[in-house]
Amino acid sequence: MTAPGQTRRGGRRGAAAAAAKGPKRRVDYRTLRNPFPPVPLFSEDRIAVMHETALHVLEELGIKVLLPQARAIFKAGGARVDEDSEMVFIGRDIVMAAVGSAPKSFVLKGGDEGRDLTMELGALTIQAGAGAPHATDLVRGRRPGSLRDFSEFTRLVQYFDVLHLQGPAVEPQDIPIHERHYATAHAVLSQSDKVPFVFSRGTPQVTEGFEMIRDFRGLSDADFAAQSWCYTIINTNSPRQIDIPMGQGIIDFARAGQAAVITPFCLMGAMAPVTVVGAVVLSHAEALAAITLSQLSRHGAPVLYGAFASNVDMKSGAPAFGTPEQVKASLACGQLARMLGLPWRNAAGCAANINDAQAAHETQMSAWGAMLSGCTMLIHGAGWIEGGLTVSYEKLITDIDMLQSLAELCLPTPADDAAMALDALKEVQPGGHFFGCAHTMERFDTAFYEPVSYDWSNIGTWAENGSLDANTRATAIWQDILEGPPNFTPDADKVDALQAYAAKRIEQGGAPPES
Amino acid sequence: MTAPGQTRRGGRRGAAAAAAKGPKRRVDYRTLRNPFPPVPLFSEDRIAVMHETALHVLEELGIKVLLPQARAIFKAGGARVDEDSEMVFIGRDIVMAAVGSAPKSFVLKGGDEGRDLTMELGALTIQAGAGAPHATDLVRGRRPGSLRDFSEFTRLVQYFDVLHLQGPAVEPQDIPIHERHYATAHAVLSQSDKVPFVFSRGTPQVTEGFEMIRDFRGLSDADFAAQSWCYTIINTNSPRQIDIPMGQGIIDFARAGQAAVITPFCLMGAMAPVTVVGAVVLSHAEALAAITLSQLSRHGAPVLYGAFASNVDMKSGAPAFGTPEQVKASLACGQLARMLGLPWRNAAGCAANINDAQAAHETQMSAWGAMLSGCTMLIHGAGWIEGGLTVSYEKLITDIDMLQSLAELCLPTPADDAAMALDALKEVQPGGHFFGCAHTMERFDTAFYEPVSYDWSNIGTWAENGSLDANTRATAIWQDILEGPPNFTPDADKVDALQAYAAKRIEQGGAPPES
Repeated sequence: MTAPGQTRRGGRRGAAAAAAKGPKRRVDYRTLRNPFPPVPLFSEDRIAVMHETALHVLEELGIKVLLPQARAIFKAGGARVDEDSEMVFIGRDIVMAAVGSAPKSFVLKGGDEGRDLTMELGALTIQAGAGAPHATDLVRGRRPGSLRDFSEFTRLVQYFDVLHLQGPAVEPQDIPIHERHYATAHAVLSQSDKVPFVFSRGTPQVTEGFEMIRDFRGLSDADFAAQSWCYTIINTNSPRQIDIPMGQGIIDFARAGQAAVITPFCLMGAMAPVTVVGAVVLSHAEALAAITLSQLSRHGAPVLYGAFASNVDMKSGAPAFGTPEQVKASLACGQLARMLGLPWRNAAGCAANINDAQAAHETQMSAWGAMLSGCTMLIHGAGWIEGGLTVSYEKLITDIDMLQSLAELCLPTPADDAAMALDALKEVQPGGHFFGCAHTMERFDTAFYEPVSYDWSNIGTWAENGSLDANTRATAIWQDILEGPPNFTPDADKVDALQAYAAKRIEQGGAPPES
Repeated sequence: MTAPGQTRRGGRRGAAAAAAKGPKRRVDYRTLRNPFPPVPLFSEDRIAVMHETALHVLEELGIKVLLPQARAIFKAGGARVDEDSEMVFIGRDIVMAAVGSAPKSFVLKGGDEGRDLTMELGALTIQAGAGAPHATDLVRGRRPGSLRDFSEFTRLVQYFDVLHLQGPAVEPQDIPIHERHYATAHAVLSQSDKVPFVFSRGTPQVTEGFEMIRDFRGLSDADFAAQSWCYTIINTNSPRQIDIPMGQGIIDFARAGQAAVITPFCLMGAMAPVTVVGAVVLSHAEALAAITLSQLSRHGAPVLYGAFASNVDMKSGAPAFGTPEQVKASLACGQLARMLGLPWRNAAGCAANINDAQAAHETQMSAWGAMLSGCTMLIHGAGWIEGGLTVSYEKLITDIDMLQSLAELCLPTPADDAAMALDALKEVQPGGHFFGCAHTMERFDTAFYEPVSYDWSNIGTWAENGSLDANTRATAIWQDILEGPPNFTPDADKVDALQAYAAKRIEQGGAPPES
């Protein structure tokens, strides 16, 4: 499998590429295993105490569950429920039985076997920035997200193998909310074979989302139910609350056998305690509560343990990302995830308002936090700015080089005797160079990672070429990709059927974003 | 000890800071231990083979040593020397005896005990970008380095505790080369108590460098010789060559008991094999040869094992930094350093021509390579662009936030019961917030890292404040630091004596940059 970025660059450098000898560099970023031993933040003793404290929180302080159906499921599962206060108190035996029944490994199915993703500790999958109300690029400026933006982002995400899942990149605000899920399903399924996302916006939309994917993938109901063909994100309302759409989403996804990524969003000092350890305890308790609801809804339902814990600026209350506190929380949550044995979700992020040095530093700092915490699914890996309020086309491109660099670190490095180059060391005399020696000639056009957006030319050449910064170069790259041919061609009949389905449902009034 | 960056920010936010309750955030970035378990790239078996191959290279292929005195030392130490070809062939017993005699731990002395640095595996020290012929900032543009630039960089480096050593930031090209070492010694010693650098530019300059430091520190000859009061960088001429100034530098520093940082600069595909493993074997062989010369010159002389291995763009030959190949080489060299047990030097770097997203991504990628390789001394950690041809004032500032974030990860994270915040979790009701609870109020102004250059305001506030990118904000910050009071006041008599020393030597014609 070839990373499109590499192929394309080769193509654009036509003459030089054609003249080059030897095999072109081919890399597989589709199936990554994290090569970094997970880094612990706290001692195993303290992790055990944190887990005990979270269990105590669920047992004694309880969690507010706004959806009556969810409270009923908790009650049937043995939890103590106070209907007046909507509080649910979950015994540790119930929680730990749920953890035990959640699968430690499952497959998220793409439109092609080459896009299937194994969700288990040790695997590494990456999603681009998602969930933004706005989009921005240097050509059109910052604007409310539109279906065009959503569609273009879908194409850009499809283009890079290092992005493994389609996320809800940007909110298409120009489409009425009760018809939006048809438009996004069409944009994703007709332009991408990567694992699709379904928003948990009430049972009607979720059910229709499942139906559209089932039919587009050509599956029977049984086939669809037998594996996970899509995923959703479940954000708890920290502190200690699961709201109606989230509760419903957990139940609907569990019962359909589809994957729920449980993600308490805990900003230290705001909706979570001001300490790393306090925020992680709260996040852990909320994740355990949601996983319990999932497993009580259906034994063995596919879930990811998740955490998105960062801090706020205590002077302004503004969210911050890519902070050392976020990295620390990621490492601690990784320890808890490994204790549970569940695949788990972490995230990169940045608070910068444009794609500058701050944006890159924050994003990479948090991405390393995710890598070193051993996460299975790295969310918001590319293109996310303003703390998630906007997706940036240019930042998507420049972050790709960061992600592909990380992916390169997942690949094996030749260390055989031939690679060790003793012959070349004999051939090249002291003070000489290796440019023309046989060892180099055999490997020169496959040896190194070739970046998408980085410019390695010296300052003279760079100035001759217009002194373009990374952002400006990125504009040309995303434009080029969108103007180029798609790398996925859907079955036309399936697209027609999907459009007919949507047209009929829209005629009937669409589906409300609530149950 | 307080990081000046933090104190200053506190000061600049006068009213808000004064109103805040509780102790101000105080952090110690002066004494860092790397918290990350070193990450191996290769199996121990292959590392052993790489070491064996490097020993074979030194024994059978040899290394060219241009300085006759160095060849004589090698010969006296038992190496086979061919005077015609200037080749030295070093037996493995000689090499491993040298490795055995090099200290596994030693102290680099600053002008104050609080600036002393322990060089040993596990410690982490950081130097800013160094060795650049040019300087750049947004106000004055890119220009050949001057003494003013050198002096200003010295002040900026002194300002941030996370930078532990003074490096040869930028070449003061406006000072004649035979007088340059007086000017740089004056700039550093009179403005900084951090460990100073001495260029290995021939015995006369090195000897005078030692004398200036000895006298400024108020030391006897015996005191000076008893510990390391300065350091130099020794770059081999890869492949397999040690030139005259470097050979002389190794000998002079060893005999004076001062620290030599041995750094083969191996660009894969150019002066080193095109493979990671081949480049690392070459780098290792050269480092071992230089360490051997050091130890043959004086048993127990303080040295750091070092490596700076990255790759070139095989299409243009341009050096690249922050690449996955650089990270891989760093990890492998870290394994070899640990096998030897010696403190070791690695580096960050970037090839970007301006301080944009590429510059930040490349710099941080390589900085993480250094962190995860367990290096003792991280060189070029802030402000280095254009592959080292230029130091950027703005990049120095934005990289400080990356470095301070890494330093924060070295600090302990409270995980005691109070930090775990069970009381706060009880106090704050579901869906509420922690802004005003007692647990937060006790900690809010010390809980989180406060960045120097990052702007966390939302896009509306950010736009009201002028839509400044990180680079532009950084300009105001370095200007502010340079306009503010120095945080180091030298002994006026010592400065006078240093100036008198330099004046006299200059009158006598200065010192040539060669032996």
